[in-house]
Amino acid sequence: MRSDGRKTNELRHVHIETEYLKHPEGSVLISIGDTKVICTASIEERVPPFMRGAGKGWITAEYSMLPRATGTRNIRESSKGKVTGRTMEIQRLIGRALRAVVSLDSIGERTVWIDCDVIQADGGTRTASITGAFVAMAMALHKLFNEKKLSSFPVSDFLAATSVGIIEGSGVILDLDYSEDSNALVDMNIVMTGTGEFVELQGTGEESTFTATQLQEMLAAAEIGLNQLMEKQRDALGEISSLIDKRRAESGTK
Amino acid sequence: MRSDGRKTNELRHVHIETEYLKHPEGSVLISIGDTKVICTASIEERVPPFMRGAGKGWITAEYSMLPRATGTRNIRESSKGKVTGRTMEIQRLIGRALRAVVSLDSIGERTVWIDCDVIQADGGTRTASITGAFVAMAMALHKLFNEKKLSSFPVSDFLAATSVGIIEGSGVILDLDYSEDSNALVDMNIVMTGTGEFVELQGTGEESTFTATQLQEMLAAAEIGLNQLMEKQRDALGEISSLIDKRRAESGTK
Amino acid sequence: MRSDGRKTNELRHVHIETEYLKHPEGSVLISIGDTKVICTASIEERVPPFMRGAGKGWITAEYSMLPRATGTRNIRESSKGKVTGRTMEIQRLIGRALRAVVSLDSIGERTVWIDCDVIQADGGTRTASITGAFVAMAMALHKLFNEKKLSSFPVSDFLAATSVGIIEGSGVILDLDYSEDSNALVDMNIVMTGTGEFVELQGTGEESTFTATQLQEMLAAAEIGLNQLMEKQRDALGEISSLIDKRRAESGTK
Amino acid sequence: MRSDGRKTNELRHVHIETEYLKHPEGSVLISIGDTKVICTASIEERVPPFMRGAGKGWITAEYSMLPRATGTRNIRESSKGKVTGRTMEIQRLIGRALRAVVSLDSIGERTVWIDCDVIQADGGTRTASITGAFVAMAMALHKLFNEKKLSSFPVSDFLAATSVGIIEGSGVILDLDYSEDSNALVDMNIVMTGTGEFVELQGTGEESTFTATQLQEMLAAAEIGLNQLMEKQRDALGEISSLIDKRRAESGTK
Amino acid sequence: MRSDGRKTNELRHVHIETEYLKHPEGSVLISIGDTKVICTASIEERVPPFMRGAGKGWITAEYSMLPRATGTRNIRESSKGKVTGRTMEIQRLIGRALRAVVSLDSIGERTVWIDCDVIQADGGTRTASITGAFVAMAMALHKLFNEKKLSSFPVSDFLAATSVGIIEGSGVILDLDYSEDSNALVDMNIVMTGTGEFVELQGTGEESTFTATQLQEMLAAAEIGLNQLMEKQRDALGEISSLIDKRRAESGTK
Amino acid sequence: MRSDGRKTNELRHVHIETEYLKHPEGSVLISIGDTKVICTASIEERVPPFMRGAGKGWITAEYSMLPRATGTRNIRESSKGKVTGRTMEIQRLIGRALRAVVSLDSIGERTVWIDCDVIQADGGTRTASITGAFVAMAMALHKLFNEKKLSSFPVSDFLAATSVGIIEGSGVILDLDYSEDSNALVDMNIVMTGTGEFVELQGTGEESTFTATQLQEMLAAAEIGLNQLMEKQRDALGEISSLIDKRRAESGTK
Repeated sequence: MRSDGRKTNELRHVHIETEYLKHPEGSVLISIGDTKVICTASIEERVPPFMRGAGKGWITAEYSMLPRATGTRNIRESSKGKVTGRTMEIQRLIGRALRAVVSLDSIGERTVWIDCDVIQADGGTRTASITGAFVAMAMALHKLFNEKKLSSFPVSDFLAATSVGIIEGSGVILDLDYSEDSNALVDMNIVMTGTGEFVELQGTGEESTFTATQLQEMLAAAEIGLNQLMEKQRDALGEISSLIDKRRAESGTK
Repeated sequence: MRSDGRKTNELRHVHIETEYLKHPEGSVLISIGDTKVICTASIEERVPPFMRGAGKGWITAEYSMLPRATGTRNIRESSKGKVTGRTMEIQRLIGRALRAVVSLDSIGERTVWIDCDVIQADGGTRTASITGAFVAMAMALHKLFNEKKLSSFPVSDFLAATSVGIIEGSGVILDLDYSEDSNALVDMNIVMTGTGEFVELQGTGEESTFTATQLQEMLAAAEIGLNQLMEKQRDALGEISSLIDKRRAESGTK
Repeated sequence: MRSDGRKTNELRHVHIETEYLKHPEGSVLISIGDTKVICTASIEERVPPFMRGAGKGWITAEYSMLPRATGTRNIRESSKGKVTGRTMEIQRLIGRALRAVVSLDSIGERTVWIDCDVIQADGGTRTASITGAFVAMAMALHKLFNEKKLSSFPVSDFLAATSVGIIEGSGVILDLDYSEDSNALVDMNIVMTGTGEFVELQGTGEESTFTATQLQEMLAAAEIGLNQLMEKQRDALGEISSLIDKRRAESGTK
Repeated sequence: MRSDGRKTNELRHVHIETEYLKHPEGSVLISIGDTKVICTASIEERVPPFMRGAGKGWITAEYSMLPRATGTRNIRESSKGKVTGRTMEIQRLIGRALRAVVSLDSIGERTVWIDCDVIQADGGTRTASITGAFVAMAMALHKLFNEKKLSSFPVSDFLAATSVGIIEGSGVILDLDYSEDSNALVDMNIVMTGTGEFVELQGTGEESTFTATQLQEMLAAAEIGLNQLMEKQRDALGEISSLIDKRRAESGTK
Repeated sequence: MRSDGRKTNELRHVHIETEYLKHPEGSVLISIGDTKVICTASIEERVPPFMRGAGKGWITAEYSMLPRATGTRNIRESSKGKVTGRTMEIQRLIGRALRAVVSLDSIGERTVWIDCDVIQADGGTRTASITGAFVAMAMALHKLFNEKKLSSFPVSDFLAATSVGIIEGSGVILDLDYSEDSNALVDMNIVMTGTGEFVELQGTGEESTFTATQLQEMLAAAEIGLNQLMEKQRDALGEISSLIDKRRAESGTK
Repeated sequence: MRSDGRKTNELRHVHIETEYLKHPEGSVLISIGDTKVICTASIEERVPPFMRGAGKGWITAEYSMLPRATGTRNIRESSKGKVTGRTMEIQRLIGRALRAVVSLDSIGERTVWIDCDVIQADGGTRTASITGAFVAMAMALHKLFNEKKLSSFPVSDFLAATSVGIIEGSGVILDLDYSEDSNALVDMNIVMTGTGEFVELQGTGEESTFTATQLQEMLAAAEIGLNQLMEKQRDALGEISSLIDKRRAESGTK
């Protein structure tokens, strides 16, 4: 039994509030337990210099925390004048993950900017960011599609992320909160599609190691959580979900 | 009549949600029309190097906007590697304003860090930040006071801020939204105490000028708005308000 | 009586030396008491990217202090690798103030770069910078006008700045030197045109506040000083003054 | 068959030259095919501020490429004034991996600085860095141990890293060179101990995904390569290897 | 004959105005032709970290140009956020040169900060800076000596700098102005003591080379100029000169 | 006699290994005693903005040290976020020196990027860099010439650099190693062409001075070393040497 009473393979309470802000093309506030992230998707009508003229689009992400999202105040990266390694790793991960389920050829020479701003942190901020950003991105691309700016809907599958880990005594657990994460021997983030394929898998022994058997147990626990998260995404996206299903079916037959 | 139907001396809808985040010592979400700012107050048990050993405290503020708080996406200051002049001006203003109503001698060698993060912008973000930050700060200091870490409650008056301006055709208006602000000939921010004294007064002709008479009209309009904002603060602070009133009465007799 | 024997509404000795440097299109050394600032105006034949193609010009300012302009040596901002908030505030103020009395439409797609370098500081460096920069700018624009590059002289009024403040015991005083500024309860900078209209008004209680009555007293003291400063500008500018007067008269009749 | 004639589960030629430089406490030049990395280990007699007083040590890594390690010249990170996200990710990975097989408690308040400088790049620079850095680090720690500065030898297992991937047509391959890496659908880096446990596992679909079955195939291929790499490490370390074996045996019995 | 009518081995007009600013411990405005540099010397009562506890002092220099010291406006290094290579080279040269004639052991754990700010540039700014900075430094150290903070006067010789060069057609010339410097085939800066010994000698062929014979001619021309510059320093320093002479005589006998 | 047994005018062992890396157009590993530098030359098919359209080429250099090239670890300049003054001075020197023997008009609008990365330092890294970079550059330009991209071979003379110095007791010595350099009273770097003309001459008294006679002795010692270094370059360049000789002969007759 975990400190908050959850079973080892139980997610925290998940809530995705859509159209959270008025300006962005897509925006959600995702809450997973006490972790709360504002995810926005903005459409820019051009691509970075290295991609110009290729006729395809780009998806890129930025991630940040409010200084007091955490138990003690963090110095702003703007005050430090540079972005930390942790932030860079996370924003590269978010962008890479989202690009795996979008046909960049279908969105034209546009950039989708994803911004994930953590307003309250309690573990799992990067996986909550991916899960929430997927919804914001799908809404923003749907807006473009609705405005007839895209000839086909470019999102070909659902995409969600969660964490699993190994805790001394408890063994494998799903969706670690901050206190669990701090004590984990092994920490693994998994990004998966609706079809059940891996997009990203990052497992790390924290001054520790893990065996092939433990890896299998962690993958199994993650799958349970990821399917539930994708149900929440489906609810949040409403009728956009059927467009995704349709694209997935089409891709599958190729 | 203004575009949203307000009278010239009418504030937008104001809402102050307290204890908005779980980690900070004080936190509010302040909404003034569509402008929404998360204001937090964090207590740090030390002061900046230039103040050490003086036995008194310090209050400092940081201000930022989410990239998509605005109609088009702004580049993050952390990505640029530096804070813009506008941001610096605003955060210096917020800190200076708050320090005017707090007895720094009474808070010991502590720093109160104010963070104002604009999640949605529609004009008046700096004045909303001051008005919200005052509430977050009072709550954080009250927490210290409650924990018997302070011998007296250090906040000696209410403090709120608003904007007034002059628009071609309409004359003087109160609480400009973004579209009004963009068209204003003159823009003035006023920070006032509960006693009706000025703490800060910044009036700027935008490629324009203003007369002494217009100055008086603007001050009069501001006073109306500021009194209403302080009523909202009073409601949000509940019983803490009477501690402020008590301190104000004591200062008055000195 | 003030420490240097001045009356409360008396300026320090003012001197404006024109054509101080050989390279800039306009340059002055302005001395106000022991405060000495080199102000130069440089004409660049293009505007910043955000203004290109609009057919109008831009005026922008930079401000700096020599490391030993002050009583103890300051670290250069170039060594720190960044410009402080105070510097940014001042240079934004100088640029904004000057733009209020120049017709940007009349100067074509050119930038006037104002550089204010304080070589000796004794209070009031920002207001001395504005007062001196106005003269340097008018001379640089007159040079363009003389070379037939402008169809009309674009400066439509005089512009000067001074400080007023409130000192415990002395009450309202004009043109604060460094020691007065350090002790002031309230500090106000006022930028005014030759017509007596305000361009900028920045009043700040330094851990203090001020009443509406005190505000009026400060404005009255400032006006006395500003009129004297504009006389000094008029002398320094010689025949260029009549071009300004002519433009002011024309604007007035519109 | 691969472009260079290798079988799918065949490593490139591996060579580890020890004591490559005269100043560092440990140094190797590791060559894996045309990828060449200078790895050094430096002992600093203190730990970072956040660890002071805890009585334990720290291991941290930095990674860089010479500008012309690659086919086209890269701009130096020192010229850019900042370290890229890719570099940060790699150096965090190297440090984390090495810390998994060293008892930080046994090295005292010292930092082991690992520097991996790629002088020629042909794919797999991060995994070559880890494999080479392990040897440099073991030698530096052995030097400390020999000088009687450590009471026990702190390295408790071997540690090596390699890459596996999936190429359209070829399926799963081991130890990707640059041209293979550029075309891979999936790219996975695996860090493993001598005991065959995972320390780090990072698999990424490059705008692609992978199934659970493919994951197993990749893990199997990696194991073959990692065992061969650890044989090379064993040869390079000579008698130090038996100290590691001894420590591993001791840990195993706990 | 040179463009300004000077002979090949003739200096421009030299003027050294002492006590130019009121705050610094030593300050001069040096003019060499149209090149004008404010040189200040500030005493700080500590040394940089790498020298603490050694009981000796340090001399360090910073160099900068006002943006409009030159024919076209230069971007401020504070705006760029970094100091250029040229500036660093010059400030390292100034500091190194001055340290050659001061007994660092005699000044205690103090730093002499030299600031050379070019307000108008017409060639030879670095050599003018050294020549002027010597005077400012000697005055600041004399002030310390007068206040009985030093047991002996620490400046053991005069020190001045000038440039020589080779111009197509004219051959070797002394003290190049900007237009000459731009056209020089060879440019050499020479720093010499009152005793006629070299402290620094930097000769550079600008996409050109020079022979041993030309080197001798340049050294001869430089010597003429340097002796005249040291006469000007002697006049500016007044009675402090005899303290330097005395120290030089003492050193000579050792 | 020197600590390593060399005579005062004896070079350390010199070795130049060509084609050291596979990617760059030219690359060498130069060893002078224990000083080892990787020098590469890269051809970029464009010039910096300030040279565009002039129809001529550019040569620029960057210099860096591995963190553990030295006895104690140096912080990377990429971590510091800026390049030190020493590095800037050295890279400016390398570029300037090489440009003196190349006809920039003959290489078209191309940039030759020189990278000198010190992998082991024992004094004389800047002069070893110049000597090695000359060979790498000549090879890269020869490659262009061979590919018929240049109408004539643009290198018109050999170019090498060495250091000389004065040591208390030993007098003038050639090619200082690190321990000698640390103790030298005077340190001079000399860059010379195959014709025996100076390109650069930088002599510095380290808190010391030198006489005209000592200067002559140092120049004589340098000449001996430089001729030997150019013999090594000639061997390393093989048949390219005769192209240089041919160009030199042609230049001589002009």
